[in-house]
Amino acid sequence: MHPAPLSAGHLQRAPENFLDAAGVQAVRTEARHGRRDFIRQAFAAAAVGLPLQARAQAGDPAILQPQAHALGLGRPVLSEAYGRPSRFEAAVQRRASPGLTPTPQSSVSFAPLQSLFGIVTPSGLHFERHHQGWWDVDPTQHRLMLNGSDERLLRRPMVFTMDELMRLPSVSRFHFIECGANTGMEWGNVAVPTCQYTHGMLSCSEFTGVPLNLLLDMAGADRRRGRYLLAEGGDGSGLTRTIPMELVERGEVLVAYGQNGEMLRPENGYPLRLVVPGVQGVSWVKYLRRIELGDQPYGSKDETLQYADLMPDGRLRQYTSVQECKSVITQPSGGQRLLDRGFCAISGLAWSGRGRVRRVDVSVDGGQNWRAARLQTPVLDKCLTRFGLDWVWDGSPALLQSRAVDDTGYVQPTYRQLRARRGTRSVYHNNAVQTWLVQASGEVSNVQLA
Amino acid sequence: MHPAPLSAGHLQRAPENFLDAAGVQAVRTEARHGRRDFIRQAFAAAAVGLPLQARAQAGDPAILQPQAHALGLGRPVLSEAYGRPSRFEAAVQRRASPGLTPTPQSSVSFAPLQSLFGIVTPSGLHFERHHQGWWDVDPTQHRLMLNGSDERLLRRPMVFTMDELMRLPSVSRFHFIECGANTGMEWGNVAVPTCQYTHGMLSCSEFTGVPLNLLLDMAGADRRRGRYLLAEGGDGSGLTRTIPMELVERGEVLVAYGQNGEMLRPENGYPLRLVVPGVQGVSWVKYLRRIELGDQPYGSKDETLQYADLMPDGRLRQYTSVQECKSVITQPSGGQRLLDRGFCAISGLAWSGRGRVRRVDVSVDGGQNWRAARLQTPVLDKCLTRFGLDWVWDGSPALLQSRAVDDTGYVQPTYRQLRARRGTRSVYHNNAVQTWLVQASGEVSNVQLA
Repeated sequence: MHPAPLSAGHLQRAPENFLDAAGVQAVRTEARHGRRDFIRQAFAAAAVGLPLQARAQAGDPAILQPQAHALGLGRPVLSEAYGRPSRFEAAVQRRASPGLTPTPQSSVSFAPLQSLFGIVTPSGLHFERHHQGWWDVDPTQHRLMLNGSDERLLRRPMVFTMDELMRLPSVSRFHFIECGANTGMEWGNVAVPTCQYTHGMLSCSEFTGVPLNLLLDMAGADRRRGRYLLAEGGDGSGLTRTIPMELVERGEVLVAYGQNGEMLRPENGYPLRLVVPGVQGVSWVKYLRRIELGDQPYGSKDETLQYADLMPDGRLRQYTSVQECKSVITQPSGGQRLLDRGFCAISGLAWSGRGRVRRVDVSVDGGQNWRAARLQTPVLDKCLTRFGLDWVWDGSPALLQSRAVDDTGYVQPTYRQLRARRGTRSVYHNNAVQTWLVQASGEVSNVQLA
Repeated sequence: MHPAPLSAGHLQRAPENFLDAAGVQAVRTEARHGRRDFIRQAFAAAAVGLPLQARAQAGDPAILQPQAHALGLGRPVLSEAYGRPSRFEAAVQRRASPGLTPTPQSSVSFAPLQSLFGIVTPSGLHFERHHQGWWDVDPTQHRLMLNGSDERLLRRPMVFTMDELMRLPSVSRFHFIECGANTGMEWGNVAVPTCQYTHGMLSCSEFTGVPLNLLLDMAGADRRRGRYLLAEGGDGSGLTRTIPMELVERGEVLVAYGQNGEMLRPENGYPLRLVVPGVQGVSWVKYLRRIELGDQPYGSKDETLQYADLMPDGRLRQYTSVQECKSVITQPSGGQRLLDRGFCAISGLAWSGRGRVRRVDVSVDGGQNWRAARLQTPVLDKCLTRFGLDWVWDGSPALLQSRAVDDTGYVQPTYRQLRARRGTRSVYHNNAVQTWLVQASGEVSNVQLA
């Protein structure tokens, strides 16, 4: 039910403007009866004489005639012991941006946010970011080592097999993961065409693993001196990241093997990755093989040369790990097209690396007026939150924006505000308000307001 | 990392009893310092002189030698535009019970609960129950009709295309779905060998769809007279179920197209199914094509001849739809084997069709003594809840049980209690406490206590 991301969205296929009258009524109803159920009011008022009813009366062969699947035996159970999506959903897939990265092994694929619902990202559509390609590592041969940068920092160095890790107590939590470079192209005001490419280095899963705190206790960590960890991946890129112990001591950092109920996928670090909630994806080290406790930041290549923010004065801002509060409207979004005026359910995602989303406001006029969106519950810590707003498109150009606020009071900035602080030359941590232009033709495209 | 369900579990592969000493210490620690973090205490005390450390010192080639994946380029992004699990996880799959049902089109496959984490069931492992096989229905040809059993009950009959439904406001919610016949074999005291077969007609997803309440308002439902709905599926089995309007008026019943972030899978009713939280799976009508509003229950074949509970006196108990509070330990469970004494993290699932799980108690001695399990948060309404308990197996036979209580105060019954009320001849709604016997050999099997 979702088209290719560079073509139109499902909204394009809506054949009739059956809710136009409803929408107009809806706005008035909301103003009059603030406490009543806006949606039910809106739609209850809508139905008289609209095409839906007409189709029921005229006789739609798709409902009146017997369909093939009503007339025969279907496919048996276990046609697929591990199931796959419908053949009609083949266009809903991860996609790579041509020319974004020099080699297919050091590259990115983006999740099709414009086609997703709720907060869970199906593991088969989770975005990919590899530094030297991905591997399907034999879990019986995988090890995790814990050591200290000197012997006193970690009294009992340890090596764990996967079996040993998996018999320890585990926790499961829903968290988003976002690459620090997500939306990075837009620093330069490049109008990336679709939501998949502007924001698709973002996914959300239920992760299961062992709290790293527990492993450090087992290994006899000196928590006074040992204030930094080095996390090291097992693949050839030699990816290493410094993790401040404050994050670990919150109890949130996991040595994770599970994702959405099953083992991690190979592209996402099977059999073991670090989960560092709220922190940019590069710190969620895949194929995790070693954790070292040290007394100072490690200054690894992946946090000094790479993943550092270029400031207007030419200096690099380092160790900027937390993904600040951000949001994006995913439906309707760039590349989709509204074929008719009338009711349109706006839907999107909001998140914050510092905590919970407190509210999301939506504007359809480029930020002049805002309305509070509904937040889908439960609103979880360092997790995607789905928001929604009922909108009636009157057929004139519109500028759709969402602006999230988290429970620290941090407000998602405009591009103007972000650039005032951090210039235009960075690649990382662009969390500015996204604008989608709906043209009179119904086409939706990516624009930046000055 | 998970074996075939009829062979041993991952616990079988744990090579050393490295936490034995820890476990003994742990229990004492818990008693003394009730408010302190039991797990961290337990494991911090455990590590001196244990095999883990020995391996680190002796030199484990799997951590000391360079591995193949550290020495070369891996596979590129988009090797799979829609990803798949690791080749090492091939044994984690849905399975059918030989001889359970007469044809593969009217059959069941079970979810591998013993290999799953957290609460989300990967859509590829969601249990299957078909009455006449499954179909991959073309969504552009699918319709949903709303009508009344007479013209006054529903003033505006309607026919919706998928596009029309998908532009309406939607909600996303996590809910379990359980077949009413789950654990049905055990009424007859048949010792089904594994958790996959005893409880695997159970799955949990984030569902997205349009509240049915909204559609009924659009169609002008007479809510005073119209107290029952008929939900009709589009496949050849002609499956129909009565849904009481009380359930719909809670706002929970959805006309759903989304599951775990993407469209429903074909085996689970793509493109449209009814979601009736807390109610047995048969009412979650797949390939949903029609909803009729009526003024009395419909008495369809699927709720009078089938899906009715045979009572001791030979009468049928009908319209028993709600899945009462229930729980099961999934690790360790039948078919798995503990290879060594010592620490063992007990993990399981609890749920209630009436609301939230309030608490889960776990016994390792067949119900003589109980300890409160940890509940993984968030604990959601009519959703699976993951529980956990730290246990030290001393090598002697043990009888593992879990007993859940929901927020109505309902306590999961023992078999003795269930049979006293409902006899032994039913197939449906067996929510009795499950017992797993751990033998001195470490083998875990299914037993029933008198």
